[in-house]
Amino acid sequence: MKQLLQIKDRIDNHYPFLWKKKITLQRNEYLIHEGEFANGMYFIQKGALHVFLNYDGDIQTMRFGYENSFICALDSFVGNCPTKFTIQAIKCTQLLKITRCDFFRIIATDEVLRESWMQALGITLNQHIEREIDLLHTSPVDRYFRLLERSPKVFQEIPSKYIASYLRMAPETLSRLLKS
Amino acid sequence: MKQLLQIKDRIDNHYPFLWKKKITLQRNEYLIHEGEFANGMYFIQKGALHVFLNYDGDIQTMRFGYENSFICALDSFVGNCPTKFTIQAIKCTQLLKITRCDFFRIIATDEVLRESWMQALGITLNQHIEREIDLLHTSPVDRYFRLLERSPKVFQEIPSKYIASYLRMAPETLSRLLKS
Repeated sequence: MKQLLQIKDRIDNHYPFLWKKKITLQRNEYLIHEGEFANGMYFIQKGALHVFLNYDGDIQTMRFGYENSFICALDSFVGNCPTKFTIQAIKCTQLLKITRCDFFRIIATDEVLRESWMQALGITLNQHIEREIDLLHTSPVDRYFRLLERSPKVFQEIPSKYIASYLRMAPETLSRLLKS
Repeated sequence: MKQLLQIKDRIDNHYPFLWKKKITLQRNEYLIHEGEFANGMYFIQKGALHVFLNYDGDIQTMRFGYENSFICALDSFVGNCPTKFTIQAIKCTQLLKITRCDFFRIIATDEVLRESWMQALGITLNQHIEREIDLLHTSPVDRYFRLLERSPKVFQEIPSKYIASYLRMAPETLSRLLKS
């Protein structure tokens, strides 16, 4: 998302000291667990992550995080409440962290950043609306084609078992669709 | 939502001339149709509306608008794209309109308004996340209890056929749940 990359550039150029921590997660390591508070926003330098809900062991993938984009437990980050999400690396992943406190401090004082953040919130909201519409499509095949149109790079960057979870279909169904 | 009421108060006190239009919709009249651009944000003085998707005649209720709250075709309002939603009055409804253009002009120049709008976007985002989680609950009974906990006033203000559509259950199933 262009607006989030503008935020990355702005922090790099004006507040590089706020990238306080470089984090490496091995495959399957966790960035945050359900019930915790999001205390940072992360820029993904390398790797990939998935954001999921866990209903008594039933994993529902909600989002993916890709290289050169941001990731955070968004519900907690914007709402300052415990997150419902768990975020886990799906391959070896390198992240830069800016704390939530620093992030909102510069948003409050830097007009350019604030404008990008407001636009990013609007676009994120629209992505969530698209996802809601996805979930209302009861046909897994419809959901597959909607995702293929919206985010073709998912199919390059994310292992198919996670895509199947996101699409709410059996891995075998996705495998058949990918071959067809 | 407190932040949106702060926006209403701020406009009332500082920019009352921007409430350019008072609109009355009779029951079943439309505020906006799928494919149109949202050119305004509306404050609901009286009445109620529902926001829905129409898949070839299959109506999927996505949201409700209540008295003393705002409503707009949010995807279009924040994304400046044609809306996927249709908004219809479910009883006789009175609205005040501020144009999208005026709204974003005062957001850009009024710091207090901008802060409330940013908070409102964050809260709205969290409401959409809750709705996504709703849709992942395959049991209609689970969805009913989640809605009852989150928005008990829905059951006072909205006719049950629309609530059933929102919960994706047959009206008879909701009727049984309401009696139980």
